Amino acid sequence: MIYVTRRERFCAAHRLVRDEWSEEKNDEVFGKCSNPNWHGHNYVLFVTVKGNQNPETGFIVNIKHLSKIIKEKVITKLDHKNINLEVDFMQGKMASTENIVIGIWEELEPVINALGIQLHCIKVQETENNFVEYYGN
Amino acid sequence: MIYVTRRERFCAAHRLVRDEWSEEKNDEVFGKCSNPNWHGHNYVLFVTVKGNQNPETGFIVNIKHLSKIIKEKVITKLDHKNINLEVDFMQGKMASTENIVIGIWEELEPVINALGIQLHCIKVQETENNFVEYYGN
Amino acid sequence: MIYVTRRERFCAAHRLVRDEWSEEKNDEVFGKCSNPNWHGHNYVLFVTVKGNQNPETGFIVNIKHLSKIIKEKVITKLDHKNINLEVDFMQGKMASTENIVIGIWEELEPVINALGIQLHCIKVQETENNFVEYYGN
Amino acid sequence: MIYVTRRERFCAAHRLVRDEWSEEKNDEVFGKCSNPNWHGHNYVLFVTVKGNQNPETGFIVNIKHLSKIIKEKVITKLDHKNINLEVDFMQGKMASTENIVIGIWEELEPVINALGIQLHCIKVQETENNFVEYYGN
Amino acid sequence: MIYVTRRERFCAAHRLVRDEWSEEKNDEVFGKCSNPNWHGHNYVLFVTVKGNQNPETGFIVNIKHLSKIIKEKVITKLDHKNINLEVDFMQGKMASTENIVIGIWEELEPVINALGIQLHCIKVQETENNFVEYYGN
Amino acid sequence: MIYVTRRERFCAAHRLVRDEWSEEKNDEVFGKCSNPNWHGHNYVLFVTVKGNQNPETGFIVNIKHLSKIIKEKVITKLDHKNINLEVDFMQGKMASTENIVIGIWEELEPVINALGIQLHCIKVQETENNFVEYYGN
Repeated sequence: MIYVTRRERFCAAHRLVRDEWSEEKNDEVFGKCSNPNWHGHNYVLFVTVKGNQNPETGFIVNIKHLSKIIKEKVITKLDHKNINLEVDFMQGKMASTENIVIGIWEELEPVINALGIQLHCIKVQETENNFVEYYGN
Repeated sequence: MIYVTRRERFCAAHRLVRDEWSEEKNDEVFGKCSNPNWHGHNYVLFVTVKGNQNPETGFIVNIKHLSKIIKEKVITKLDHKNINLEVDFMQGKMASTENIVIGIWEELEPVINALGIQLHCIKVQETENNFVEYYGN
Repeated sequence: MIYVTRRERFCAAHRLVRDEWSEEKNDEVFGKCSNPNWHGHNYVLFVTVKGNQNPETGFIVNIKHLSKIIKEKVITKLDHKNINLEVDFMQGKMASTENIVIGIWEELEPVINALGIQLHCIKVQETENNFVEYYGN
Repeated sequence: MIYVTRRERFCAAHRLVRDEWSEEKNDEVFGKCSNPNWHGHNYVLFVTVKGNQNPETGFIVNIKHLSKIIKEKVITKLDHKNINLEVDFMQGKMASTENIVIGIWEELEPVINALGIQLHCIKVQETENNFVEYYGN
Repeated sequence: MIYVTRRERFCAAHRLVRDEWSEEKNDEVFGKCSNPNWHGHNYVLFVTVKGNQNPETGFIVNIKHLSKIIKEKVITKLDHKNINLEVDFMQGKMASTENIVIGIWEELEPVINALGIQLHCIKVQETENNFVEYYGN
Repeated sequence: MIYVTRRERFCAAHRLVRDEWSEEKNDEVFGKCSNPNWHGHNYVLFVTVKGNQNPETGFIVNIKHLSKIIKEKVITKLDHKNINLEVDFMQGKMASTENIVIGIWEELEPVINALGIQLHCIKVQETENNFVEYYGN
């Protein structure tokens, strides 16, 4: 088993808010991340796949294909968007990095599987101090 | 002359838009940066000051004081904010990185001067591929 | 299972030395790391926790709480300190990065568990070329 | 079990090509990576070993010894070389990062084992956007 | 005057060699950089332009246009190429980073000037430890 | 004029203290940087030289020679040392980064001049948030 990772990036706006909570409660739990006027991040996404080598190419996956799939399925939906308002797979969910990695996993897993390899990990870095990883369930 | 630089960070939402232009024109000039639902960045700010050494401390400036000033005058206004809607020194201006460096310069210059040193450069990195520097006029 | 990682930093002095060894033996094994006048590093600490999502917040852990705990339990003990002389959980141990990660694990594990989540990994980077990871025993 | 990682670097030329394929097929599959005049990279290598602590030193491995072994067994063979033409353990293989991590694993595993510890992972970063990891088979 | 910098990257092969010198002399002066089988790097290019703000956009230059120009004029010529053999503006010159920054300056200056702004600096990073800057003559 | 920069690193212990001041005053001015038991940093040094190209090599300076000089004159004196106690060119001075850059400048300038080129800038990064630059007087 060999693991191949591709890094991609997206810049997006979001906020953390629970509508049924008061403004005070949102502020207490989420602090400045709850600002109603939004804020944003340069998110960094790492997609790791695993599998056996193609005997002809020596590849697990052609990284150009992997990059193209990630861009089409994920980056175009997230980049320069508002995660709360505009991203179909995030509707009805808190716009936390935890939910972003799960959402990206669900978008990518069937397409990655169709290539005959497996999705291993989705990692999203929100700032230089915080990142979240998901390995499926 | 010795130059001392302090790095600080802020995460913010913004968009590039010219109200008197049509949506098509805004889209043509600013592309996805004009998204009406906002997007955002992890901005990185570098403040460079210059001056002569304090003979007692060996410092140009006590970097803890410099950091405190930058946080009070600039970071609290920008961090987890919407640059177009919420930042006083950006009102009525395009929320471009060029205007952000000028705005930060104007906020910091009088306070830096009051310390007996000079502001030398404001640098703001918007993404890993783009940054803007301003040395005053 | 989702994994959340927080990065924190501490600057500290240390040396590697075995008191019962001669200076020559210490020098042979530990080289310049054994300098009796100390040296130091900008250590970078990565704390990874795992658990299930809080259904209300979408969080594994509120990262601000996690950061506060790490600062109180670990960073205040290590930052701008002498690891050999001043850090309670390092007393009587070689000040190697291996022992630092174990020491930090033991400081953090009970407090992390008390939050209803699990400590997964302590990673400490000593220089850009060296890091150590510990997953508990 | 504690994991210790050492980072080393090598700059090398390579190309991806399958001799029995036509130029068109090579170009279609490998694109610009197939350029007959070569191209190159600043490869970054991370070698992770695991084991129990030496009770006298607090080390899993003396990182200076580990670095020396990696340089002697791997870096001198790869650095400022042509991977396709000059690296003995890559002869007859596609010069993909997947094959490079396997090749480095096979070079290092016996020497690491001889130290009484285990090789855990070989990671090679080809560009800031791509890396490959191998944990043995 | 405001300065805007765009980062781009190219991966290329090269060697340092002076044909009229013996192999020994080349080896003595250029060391492993003279390997006849080539080696390569992940070069990082920083292009800095300066000028006055466009009153309508707040830009010195539309960074998307700047990136497009750099890619068309420079990156397509260098990326995944052999600098000694395939890059028109490097023919007859030593493939040193010094000559690369001069060559890129000459390619870009007329096109940048045609935008009504000025080229300020070409910086090329060859490895994490070496970079060269050129401000024109 | 072309500028060439070499990066080197040193890990060292230091403290900021003014002996004629009370402990309280030292603590008030220097805070935790005044800890009598020392602390330390992974310092990063950037040495920039400028000059005209050697017509035979295309170099301003052979970067291997420059690196060797920096290591011999500066790094061996600072790396894994106590800056207050052990570094000859820092004796009798506050161990601030401002004084470190001046000290390194004075060590290197005559040797760089002897190569027929000029020293342009000494930059020392103390942490990821602070750095100091000196261009001579």
